[in-house]
Amino acid sequence: MLPLELVLAIVVPVVGLALAGYNAASVLSIKPGKKDLTDINMLIAEGGKTFLMREYKTILPTGVILTILIWAAYYLTFHIHSGLMAGLAALSFALGAIGSAVAGYMGMYVTTRSAAKTAWMAKNGMGPALSTSFKAGTVMGLSLASIALLVVSILYWAYQSILPTPLWAEALAPVAFGASLISLFIRVAGGIYTKAADWGADIVGKVEAGIPEDDPRNPGVIADNVGDNVGDCAGMASDVYESFVVVLAGALLLAAVFGLATRLINLSIVIATLTLLSTLVGIQVVRGEVRGKNLAAAAMGKLNTALYTTIVVAAILVGIYAFLSFPTMEAVAIFVSDLLGMITAIVVLFATEYFTHYTFPPVRNIARQATLSASNVIVAGYSYGLLSAIPTVLMVVGALGISYILGSMFIAPGIEGGIFGTAIASVGLLSLAGVVISLDSYGPVSDNANGLVEMTGMEDVREVTDALDAIGNTFKATTKGYAIASAGLAALILFIGFIYEVADRIYKGASLIQILTQASSQLTIIDPRIIIGALVGVALVYFFSSTTLASVGRAAGELVEEIRRQFREKKILELWPQERPDYNRAIDIVTTHALKNFLIPGISAVIIPIIVGVALGWIGLVGLIFGVILAGFPRALLMANAGGAWDNAKKYIEIEGIVINGQRFGKKSEPHKNAVVGDVVGDPFKDTTGPSLNPLIKVVNTVSIVFAPAIAAVSLMNPAASPLIMHIISVIVSLL
Amino acid sequence: MLPLELVLAIVVPVVGLALAGYNAASVLSIKPGKKDLTDINMLIAEGGKTFLMREYKTILPTGVILTILIWAAYYLTFHIHSGLMAGLAALSFALGAIGSAVAGYMGMYVTTRSAAKTAWMAKNGMGPALSTSFKAGTVMGLSLASIALLVVSILYWAYQSILPTPLWAEALAPVAFGASLISLFIRVAGGIYTKAADWGADIVGKVEAGIPEDDPRNPGVIADNVGDNVGDCAGMASDVYESFVVVLAGALLLAAVFGLATRLINLSIVIATLTLLSTLVGIQVVRGEVRGKNLAAAAMGKLNTALYTTIVVAAILVGIYAFLSFPTMEAVAIFVSDLLGMITAIVVLFATEYFTHYTFPPVRNIARQATLSASNVIVAGYSYGLLSAIPTVLMVVGALGISYILGSMFIAPGIEGGIFGTAIASVGLLSLAGVVISLDSYGPVSDNANGLVEMTGMEDVREVTDALDAIGNTFKATTKGYAIASAGLAALILFIGFIYEVADRIYKGASLIQILTQASSQLTIIDPRIIIGALVGVALVYFFSSTTLASVGRAAGELVEEIRRQFREKKILELWPQERPDYNRAIDIVTTHALKNFLIPGISAVIIPIIVGVALGWIGLVGLIFGVILAGFPRALLMANAGGAWDNAKKYIEIEGIVINGQRFGKKSEPHKNAVVGDVVGDPFKDTTGPSLNPLIKVVNTVSIVFAPAIAAVSLMNPAASPLIMHIISVIVSLL
Repeated sequence: MLPLELVLAIVVPVVGLALAGYNAASVLSIKPGKKDLTDINMLIAEGGKTFLMREYKTILPTGVILTILIWAAYYLTFHIHSGLMAGLAALSFALGAIGSAVAGYMGMYVTTRSAAKTAWMAKNGMGPALSTSFKAGTVMGLSLASIALLVVSILYWAYQSILPTPLWAEALAPVAFGASLISLFIRVAGGIYTKAADWGADIVGKVEAGIPEDDPRNPGVIADNVGDNVGDCAGMASDVYESFVVVLAGALLLAAVFGLATRLINLSIVIATLTLLSTLVGIQVVRGEVRGKNLAAAAMGKLNTALYTTIVVAAILVGIYAFLSFPTMEAVAIFVSDLLGMITAIVVLFATEYFTHYTFPPVRNIARQATLSASNVIVAGYSYGLLSAIPTVLMVVGALGISYILGSMFIAPGIEGGIFGTAIASVGLLSLAGVVISLDSYGPVSDNANGLVEMTGMEDVREVTDALDAIGNTFKATTKGYAIASAGLAALILFIGFIYEVADRIYKGASLIQILTQASSQLTIIDPRIIIGALVGVALVYFFSSTTLASVGRAAGELVEEIRRQFREKKILELWPQERPDYNRAIDIVTTHALKNFLIPGISAVIIPIIVGVALGWIGLVGLIFGVILAGFPRALLMANAGGAWDNAKKYIEIEGIVINGQRFGKKSEPHKNAVVGDVVGDPFKDTTGPSLNPLIKVVNTVSIVFAPAIAAVSLMNPAASPLIMHIISVIVSLL
Repeated sequence: MLPLELVLAIVVPVVGLALAGYNAASVLSIKPGKKDLTDINMLIAEGGKTFLMREYKTILPTGVILTILIWAAYYLTFHIHSGLMAGLAALSFALGAIGSAVAGYMGMYVTTRSAAKTAWMAKNGMGPALSTSFKAGTVMGLSLASIALLVVSILYWAYQSILPTPLWAEALAPVAFGASLISLFIRVAGGIYTKAADWGADIVGKVEAGIPEDDPRNPGVIADNVGDNVGDCAGMASDVYESFVVVLAGALLLAAVFGLATRLINLSIVIATLTLLSTLVGIQVVRGEVRGKNLAAAAMGKLNTALYTTIVVAAILVGIYAFLSFPTMEAVAIFVSDLLGMITAIVVLFATEYFTHYTFPPVRNIARQATLSASNVIVAGYSYGLLSAIPTVLMVVGALGISYILGSMFIAPGIEGGIFGTAIASVGLLSLAGVVISLDSYGPVSDNANGLVEMTGMEDVREVTDALDAIGNTFKATTKGYAIASAGLAALILFIGFIYEVADRIYKGASLIQILTQASSQLTIIDPRIIIGALVGVALVYFFSSTTLASVGRAAGELVEEIRRQFREKKILELWPQERPDYNRAIDIVTTHALKNFLIPGISAVIIPIIVGVALGWIGLVGLIFGVILAGFPRALLMANAGGAWDNAKKYIEIEGIVINGQRFGKKSEPHKNAVVGDVVGDPFKDTTGPSLNPLIKVVNTVSIVFAPAIAAVSLMNPAASPLIMHIISVIVSLL
């Protein structure tokens, strides 16, 4: 018999997927009455599809090998149910990865095809254009939230009915690794793709040939538009999907390892279900006409209302559920922790907007520095970027601290209750993924719609699509803050989960109290393995950041060569429109080099934890993960926000201009050129390296959770390692 | 009766100071036969003196208040010998600060006055010029190493003869806080000063008025030259002096708290003494004629030989001492740990040179990116900066790991022996301070000499001073790496020392084993106070970095206004040399604003640990310090090395040029302009924020060591806090 909670946890996401399908069908059924609009749009859609399919194909062998390795690691380290555990763990991993891939593909399919529809609907005014692009965005948002909840709920229901606690949770854990592997791939390779295409197209197009940004004569222009979808749409979705899966699986794992009551184990699933239900309500706000003096402000208002409606409804539903199901003070602790998670979302979204939008002082100050020199722009933007990380870090710290205290006072005594409280706050934050990603995915749709309007000369709707694009840029920037905060919380939950899971398996047979005492006395911060591991973790973040940054330049260089070659050999600029660029070759080159450049940072993210684990034991691994989180989480904020601020400082000069001693400096002025230097530096900061740090801080955790017991067994630090290594070899030999 | 070790530890530094005095006298006795040379030099010397004296005057009230606070904190938390402990602790603090101030003043006095002497001696060739500027540098190097050793040795000898172990070590600990307070002040305020003067003078001089860098018509030119000495000379010296004092005091404290044998307690003093003796030998290498085809390479060779001679002699002396005084395997452990520390110095110096000098690929690659755009220069430099942190971090980690293993195997069993092993490695690294700072301080002397040659039109010696300046720049850059690695090791030693010292006082009366068990089981990395503290620590590093970076722009802006005003009102450019700039007003403005902008980052470095301690207890404070070290140490390397690389990418284009498709791009070309953008961004990176992180990571430790027991008593986390707070209030009332 399925309890009501689990029935809902399956029904609601199915409804969510149905609504996503309905919205997709209604957007895709729009037939623009302008052929070139659809034609160019299809080039982008096909380019996006090609990139995703090549990514998936490239990752397939790695995925298969890892599935086998996970099977083997579980088979060798579990001594009871070893066959079943190994099979289920491999299944979890595969489903986590496939779910992420499917959500990304579905969302991309619709968003890439919706730009032409939005451009066309803009002829009917702001209202229809807004609801079209937002509907397209909801396909991504609803798909990812529904699939994440569905995968975790089904696995949870199935595993706990055939395995004892906490074994089912341990079999479930690899679902997070599957999701994080895909996310790492899409974020890094996609991040390199999007900015290499952007840089490459701009260097030859805007700088050398002097043609405008979205000019169809530029062979790199389609690759550039594909990149927007790959980065802001598929990349963001896979990242937040991963955090959502991680937080749900982590909350289940912790509740199971702590031996909490079933109702508490189910709690994270229930909160996610109720918030998804609220999302289905909240997103209905964005429809009908947009009226008012300032159309952009009115549209922005509608979108914000969708978010706030979702939060209010979710708070009411979760509150009712908590007070009906738990004693009063426990219900208060649950309700406040969930609310803290959602408030974190609001604070982070606002802090990001404050530091990256030109209605606030930071971006204006950076723009004013542009009257001095490009160097001043860089230093000012970097300085604000550093500052911008602080409110988000402190908000996360505050939410963790308060939910910890509430949890340990009212949910369960001591550390377990406290940690579970922080897990509820994290679930609260991540449950908003559906609505936040709907708002985010609306961004690339309106960005591409605006590009199509420029390419096809639809000057009459320019005002509408410009406004839509500007709003989209704001949400694209603020969602980055949300994704980073989510990744930070997810990583911390995983970190704690990792420690308990491994401790549970290393000190097997011991009681929870014994395990906690053992683990915590071993994990003292004075242990040199912790200190060394943490420093190596910071070094890993530096290495990863350095290689991803450098990759953009290298891949862009290849595209530059190709565009120059096409201009030279095909004389496109002279013979246009008789001679047309070979867009696909440009896409192909960027794809190839993005995938090639993924290798070193991607592999290091998976291999270094294993090497450190073998060299320093699982205690060194704990240090490594701690170092990666401490260095990676604020660095992601720094890079994303500095990039966003530089971008908007340039836009501020273009749109409003700066007045110094009565003289106005606008587009093409010297200060504008200085601001462009910052904008271009910010591109790989905010769209490649910054976002790639999110999956990095999660993947070091997930790879450790899955392989740590096996690593601990063969670790050089384990005095019992040699006989165990012999045992493992003999098992492998007997299997062959 | 003074044992031989301590007699030597007082005699050798006295000899060092005597040699410093002799070298100072011999350089200052040179009488340049060119009046304007001496006149301009005296302007710089006076400016430097004025800045230092105003710094010291500004810090005096803070110093007095802190002396009283330390006295009170010790008086209230020590229950035996409380009056004596309080008095000695206050004395230690004052002596630590005064020693740093005196060493900085003595060194600055000589180096600022030596530029004219060096320029004049350059008429006699490379040999005399090199030995003059290096002799001036040794005054700084020998003063700081000798004073550091002398202060610690005398206090150690005096305190341990009147107090039992480990009380004397606890009374000694504030010496490190005194040193770190002065260092924080000089690094931050001096760092802002040097780059604000540089930026301000360049923006109006080079960019707006189009006059050369060291043109005497620029009112900011003397401030700029003063800045070189303030930053590279006084700043670096106070920083390394602090690390040296910290490591010596930390090693004494750890040995005392661990209850090691007297011979082991003395060991760090002995190693420092023998290495200072070796330094007196090593620096004799730099004398006589410089011969060879390439004069610069020959001069560089001599300077490097001074370093290597010191290391070889020190290794021999320490080896002999160790094998004569300890059982064989213990001697091996001591010898290898000391050697590892010195090898760390070599590796770090080389790694820094590799990433910041244009004879190696990184800087050349950055320069090549300048052919694309300024943005490419920024991204490439930043990417290499990130990468450059890794070898130093890994070398420090390796040295720590190996010396830990050796120590725990052969010096004392378990954690104590291991930690003491790492302390020996740290002493090995820091003992080289004398020779390394001699090499570093030679840099600003030759830089200023070259500037004076330009200002006074001594074209005939330009070749010699150019070569000297180039070598000086290399040492200035590489010494930054040494200072950062030293700060990192010093901070880690302090971190461990802090934990044991506080644990010793909190669990008073317990045996060492009990304290260790108590402390380590409390300091588990899963404790939310550790995690929250660490995240706040990272946020503190970000805040500190952001405010110091932003300060440079603000202070430079003030200087820009002043230079523009002088140009406008005094018409210097038109009426020169009848109308002369008011250099002192420019110096005064930069000084005022550097000191003003010091306030926020400076105070936050001291106050935040206290706030976190009160809010989260001493466990939260442990987390905070860990976070600050993890974030600050690699960030210092990133910022210093990225800045150095950008600087030299520009110089590479100026000196060698880049050839693309047969076309050569040199000074004033488009790529050169792009490289200048990077160079200017790098200025506050490498000379303000990067170096300021060194005292930050040490000062959070030293302030915690001194105040932690008092903080723990009044902490909100301490259930016994309320009665204790009442007790403290009643003691204060009874004292009044």
